[in-house]
Amino acid sequence: MRMVDIIEKKRMGEVNTQAEIDFLINGYVAGDIPDYQISSWLMAVFFQGMTEEEAYHLTIAMLHSGDIIDLSQIAGVKVDKHSTGGVGDKTTLVLGPIVASVGAKLAKLSGRGLGHTGGTLDKMESIDGLSFALPEDKFIKQVNDINMAVAGQTKKIVPADKLLYALRDVTGTVPSKPLIASSIMSKKLASGADVICLDVKIGDGAFMKTIEEAVDLSKLMVSIGSQSGKKVTAFITNMDQPLGMTIGNRLEIKEVIETLSGNGPNDLETLCLDIASYMIFYAKKADSVESARILAKEQITNGKALAKFYEFIEAQGGKIGDLDKFITVKEIIPYYAKKTGYIKRIKALNIGLVSMKLGGGRETKEQDIDPNVGVVLHKKVSDYVKKGDLLCELYCNKAIGSDIVPMLDDAYELVTEVVKKPDTILEIITK
Amino acid sequence: MRMVDIIEKKRMGEVNTQAEIDFLINGYVAGDIPDYQISSWLMAVFFQGMTEEEAYHLTIAMLHSGDIIDLSQIAGVKVDKHSTGGVGDKTTLVLGPIVASVGAKLAKLSGRGLGHTGGTLDKMESIDGLSFALPEDKFIKQVNDINMAVAGQTKKIVPADKLLYALRDVTGTVPSKPLIASSIMSKKLASGADVICLDVKIGDGAFMKTIEEAVDLSKLMVSIGSQSGKKVTAFITNMDQPLGMTIGNRLEIKEVIETLSGNGPNDLETLCLDIASYMIFYAKKADSVESARILAKEQITNGKALAKFYEFIEAQGGKIGDLDKFITVKEIIPYYAKKTGYIKRIKALNIGLVSMKLGGGRETKEQDIDPNVGVVLHKKVSDYVKKGDLLCELYCNKAIGSDIVPMLDDAYELVTEVVKKPDTILEIITK
Repeated sequence: MRMVDIIEKKRMGEVNTQAEIDFLINGYVAGDIPDYQISSWLMAVFFQGMTEEEAYHLTIAMLHSGDIIDLSQIAGVKVDKHSTGGVGDKTTLVLGPIVASVGAKLAKLSGRGLGHTGGTLDKMESIDGLSFALPEDKFIKQVNDINMAVAGQTKKIVPADKLLYALRDVTGTVPSKPLIASSIMSKKLASGADVICLDVKIGDGAFMKTIEEAVDLSKLMVSIGSQSGKKVTAFITNMDQPLGMTIGNRLEIKEVIETLSGNGPNDLETLCLDIASYMIFYAKKADSVESARILAKEQITNGKALAKFYEFIEAQGGKIGDLDKFITVKEIIPYYAKKTGYIKRIKALNIGLVSMKLGGGRETKEQDIDPNVGVVLHKKVSDYVKKGDLLCELYCNKAIGSDIVPMLDDAYELVTEVVKKPDTILEIITK
Repeated sequence: MRMVDIIEKKRMGEVNTQAEIDFLINGYVAGDIPDYQISSWLMAVFFQGMTEEEAYHLTIAMLHSGDIIDLSQIAGVKVDKHSTGGVGDKTTLVLGPIVASVGAKLAKLSGRGLGHTGGTLDKMESIDGLSFALPEDKFIKQVNDINMAVAGQTKKIVPADKLLYALRDVTGTVPSKPLIASSIMSKKLASGADVICLDVKIGDGAFMKTIEEAVDLSKLMVSIGSQSGKKVTAFITNMDQPLGMTIGNRLEIKEVIETLSGNGPNDLETLCLDIASYMIFYAKKADSVESARILAKEQITNGKALAKFYEFIEAQGGKIGDLDKFITVKEIIPYYAKKTGYIKRIKALNIGLVSMKLGGGRETKEQDIDPNVGVVLHKKVSDYVKKGDLLCELYCNKAIGSDIVPMLDDAYELVTEVVKKPDTILEIITK
């Protein structure tokens, strides 16, 4: 088998066989196939796409390049969740305790955030004492004991994805649906869950710009999951504004607790309950998605979800203490509306970048995150505001740069016409 | 400037600027841009193409990566010719003496053939004593003295093309029109001529399979030439059979002499006179292409072209001697028609490969060529043959392999219907 023939087949729009894809991934990981052949193949994939079967074979070849987590020692249905990356996205920490409290098993491996958005690990790490350095046996015991554990991804998971992603990043081949789908799904499959919910964001700062693109990507991931014997559901969600009212690690942890107490913002609660209801249904803890949603909501009302959250934090060594003293900043800077109107959009990417520049995210891998800083929104899309009204507050521990206010000015789009309250979930794809 | 942005622009179908293309070629030749970024850009070019302006900028950037031959010391209009590679193609050696004999200047740098087809250098080298190791001053003096010289290409001509071609060869990015056009044109421009005639082959074994593809490629090369201030004409020619009756280095030299004596095969003479007439016209040695063609034909009739050929061979140190003793082989093996019918096609690639396997071409760079061996055709496309008629003869100096006869069987396509005599030149593109 010659790599150049595999490239030419793809270039001509033909289908690469399982044997060819295995040869390609194994050869690349082994160092036998050079970067320059892989990158031209990746570009050919960008233009010619892949069939569902090819994308499945690519995913499986990548999956087998590294360790696959064995969750067979966990009794019951294991559920997992992945988001393509949102600003203010703390859904895992809300829906995890909800589904764990009804008996589904959330055994989640999570990554760190790079850039504007903090990952789940970064958010949890803002809690004193909390650790992810769980050895596999302890991780499995914790899920069996309390139905929920989150650990950091090891480097041994899907090394092919790390290699391919680094190459795609510098060769203009990131935004290809089969390459995105196989990257996400190989890591999810390596994590060993039976039920996988995917949150596919569209809008400003997201990979997918249109609902059509997001639907295509989602269908492909659902198909890959189904070919692997997994139950995958994709939720296409709106990122025309940040999720919830807070961006910044401790601010978001606090919002998680408020949401689990029944006092969360509507968009965040809706998204978490909707995803949780599919997890609960597929984990066979309810007869229908509808009854699963009622059950999920009850876990908030009866306090069991919040109790599960604290139990989980404690199991991993964390301690939140007095919530009023949880966040300490030197200064809270208000940002006011510069004109009157209805908010049509709050560019999530801008708000994420503002939070990062305040110290809440990493610009480089080496940077430390300040867990206390961030942005608190006071108005959301469709709200009517008068000139001078408070739009958001910046939680700061250092002087802010001159680039912050222009970035906020650009983030808020105000119009004179009434704006409809946007749907959080635009479409649900399952099989 | 970042290479990844240049790749992404091309991937999105945008136009790369001159500055971007210069950055890419200069950076690649300097070793600052890695192969894997160039190869993904090449694949994006395959899919998105290039404007005429982009292809021109690419050609010029490649041209400036190495030496450019200075022919300004040669008085008069310098003409040059390039063929995309044909089996039995000895046109340079026929039309060169024709145009030189009327005062056009042919200062040609030629490459060696690799694979089935011998290059002009290989054909000339079959003549005892002939040398191409002409220093620049001697090369220029010879053109000034006798209007014609052929030298080997130095390694310093367009190093960017050598790098790019080697990369394209292993990354499935060879058959892209702007990449082929810039490769050919950068080398032709580096050779310094004012008038360039291009012979673009279509058919079996050629890069271009259809006349539409060949027309597109030709228009692009003519445009690049015109943007460079050169007069470029492209001749789209048929490769549904080898050109002339001979394949093999000395066999072809002998056919050149016969053609220059007025006894050549019709297709070869027609092609040479047609190309020569454009060269003569653009070299201002005739008022029209039509009168140039009459003049070209006269050079054969009056013996001046043949005399120029011998003058040229002698100037480069070669001696042909008695033409009857020029070719010496141990055995001439006949190949007969296996059925009766009209010849519809003689696969040029097969005949070229047969000649190579007899020892007339190189399978690897290191191989020596036997100048005496080759194939002599006795019938051409449209000829009616009876089963048992002589189709061709193999000139051999060693026992032939068992693969030769099946390759010949496959080469000849015989049909029962009358076959029209094919046109040698299908279209002429100029500006």
